[in-house]
Amino acid sequence: MDDSVSQYSFIVRLHDTDAAGRLFFGHLFRHAQDAFESFMAHLGWPIPDLIQRGEWLLPVIHAEADYQRPIHHGELIWVEVGVEEIRRRSFALAYWFRKEDGTETAQARTVHILMSAVGEKDLALPEALRLALARHLKDAAVGVSCARAHPDAQS
Amino acid sequence: MDDSVSQYSFIVRLHDTDAAGRLFFGHLFRHAQDAFESFMAHLGWPIPDLIQRGEWLLPVIHAEADYQRPIHHGELIWVEVGVEEIRRRSFALAYWFRKEDGTETAQARTVHILMSAVGEKDLALPEALRLALARHLKDAAVGVSCARAHPDAQS
Amino acid sequence: MDDSVSQYSFIVRLHDTDAAGRLFFGHLFRHAQDAFESFMAHLGWPIPDLIQRGEWLLPVIHAEADYQRPIHHGELIWVEVGVEEIRRRSFALAYWFRKEDGTETAQARTVHILMSAVGEKDLALPEALRLALARHLKDAAVGVSCARAHPDAQS
Amino acid sequence: MDDSVSQYSFIVRLHDTDAAGRLFFGHLFRHAQDAFESFMAHLGWPIPDLIQRGEWLLPVIHAEADYQRPIHHGELIWVEVGVEEIRRRSFALAYWFRKEDGTETAQARTVHILMSAVGEKDLALPEALRLALARHLKDAAVGVSCARAHPDAQS
Repeated sequence: MDDSVSQYSFIVRLHDTDAAGRLFFGHLFRHAQDAFESFMAHLGWPIPDLIQRGEWLLPVIHAEADYQRPIHHGELIWVEVGVEEIRRRSFALAYWFRKEDGTETAQARTVHILMSAVGEKDLALPEALRLALARHLKDAAVGVSCARAHPDAQS
Repeated sequence: MDDSVSQYSFIVRLHDTDAAGRLFFGHLFRHAQDAFESFMAHLGWPIPDLIQRGEWLLPVIHAEADYQRPIHHGELIWVEVGVEEIRRRSFALAYWFRKEDGTETAQARTVHILMSAVGEKDLALPEALRLALARHLKDAAVGVSCARAHPDAQS
Repeated sequence: MDDSVSQYSFIVRLHDTDAAGRLFFGHLFRHAQDAFESFMAHLGWPIPDLIQRGEWLLPVIHAEADYQRPIHHGELIWVEVGVEEIRRRSFALAYWFRKEDGTETAQARTVHILMSAVGEKDLALPEALRLALARHLKDAAVGVSCARAHPDAQS
Repeated sequence: MDDSVSQYSFIVRLHDTDAAGRLFFGHLFRHAQDAFESFMAHLGWPIPDLIQRGEWLLPVIHAEADYQRPIHHGELIWVEVGVEEIRRRSFALAYWFRKEDGTETAQARTVHILMSAVGEKDLALPEALRLALARHLKDAAVGVSCARAHPDAQS
């Protein structure tokens, strides 16, 4: 993600897969975190500095993912990150996982809340962070709404 | 989970935690999977046999979690698993993560769909599995509804 | 590991396995750490307290493992932990991973050094810890010597 | 690792670290595997194809690592991979983990054996693979010899 948030990608490694021959669903969140950290660094808010300074944190209070197609060992996956929602003290990011040919394989969403290192929760996001995030707001929310959480809605 | 689904528990190990001093959010899904496999074995549908037989799979098509309180290294966490919803070809499980004193720390939800090993999707859950799951249906849905995905709704 | 260090066990879960259908070699160290933490708690030296007190740490300076037989999804693995060596400021633990029938599947070894939280290295192990460890010293070193690191020595 | 084996690198992410504020030792092997897969692809022997063809595997029969300096969240780590030893049916790779300024932080070693998918073990490495590996043979063995496994040999 050197010059564009859409540049983040990874290759699916053996440890990402399981005996069913596909990416283990939980490991997707590890890659989402990698994309998140790249995104925040791109915004000028590197997470490692944040944690090392020890003043406040941006813990995940909600995470979710939809898995549309199996992801296999050796595949190159591109991750696009966008801001879905910005609130007073929290924000939601959306992640689109696509294969090289553009096929969407999964989507994820994380909600981060501003918290002081001592656990204080009623903090507003710094204006500068809110502005940085606002530049990446997406029109459409990522497709992990409750409605789409159950693809066989007709079943 | 020898004699009761509510018996599943784990101790938070060093590799579960991160530099922020708490359980890394993504690792919660690894523990949810452990509870899921214990639950399915308890139901008489062990996942390892399912995968080794190679006829069909129960891949996760949706996963989500809410994190209410930080989970720390060394804590004993109890996981209660319940069936939230059963559909023709898929089902949703809910997971409650509680500390020893009963404090709820996190909740998770996974949706599993029946799929043939060759990818065929339009399969109905075996009646025996549907019945086994039905015995663990919860009245209340787990609190990971979209409404609660954003705790600071008023923010 | 309630009443005996040899009581530690785990069931191989889906996320432990990879697309080759066996436990991913790197994940063995996660289970070794679990056995290590159980062992240290059994000795009266719980690692979480150690880290939370923030005075000193016992970082791993060397880790190794030999893999004799593939470990598969769903298998119950027993881990026996023993003390291989005690030095002035470090100690080495050995881990034997066995299936239910006693078949040895893997062995591991970790070397831990006492270090102050600020990185100071020239510290001697507390006498009480040295004594606790000494009670679990093994006669035979675990078979992960360099000699056995290459099973096909004749090849 | 596009055009040179020494090009592999990764950034230490939050999930790589633990509550002690450093990379969890076991996670180093996940990065070693990433470097291994990049290296094998660079050699023209991509591991995913190998596993998907299902004829033979290159399971790890021995893995070890020495940790010289703590690795922290956000650090960029370069991994150099070299071939330490080639035998009739197995080979050993060495990994040097260095920070941006060249400081060595860790070293690892993995031994891979050729095995048929059905478990047959007495297979010789294909000549083409042996030749490809031979081009990357290192003069000096990686410093994870038993001698150096215990840095405080004088303690």
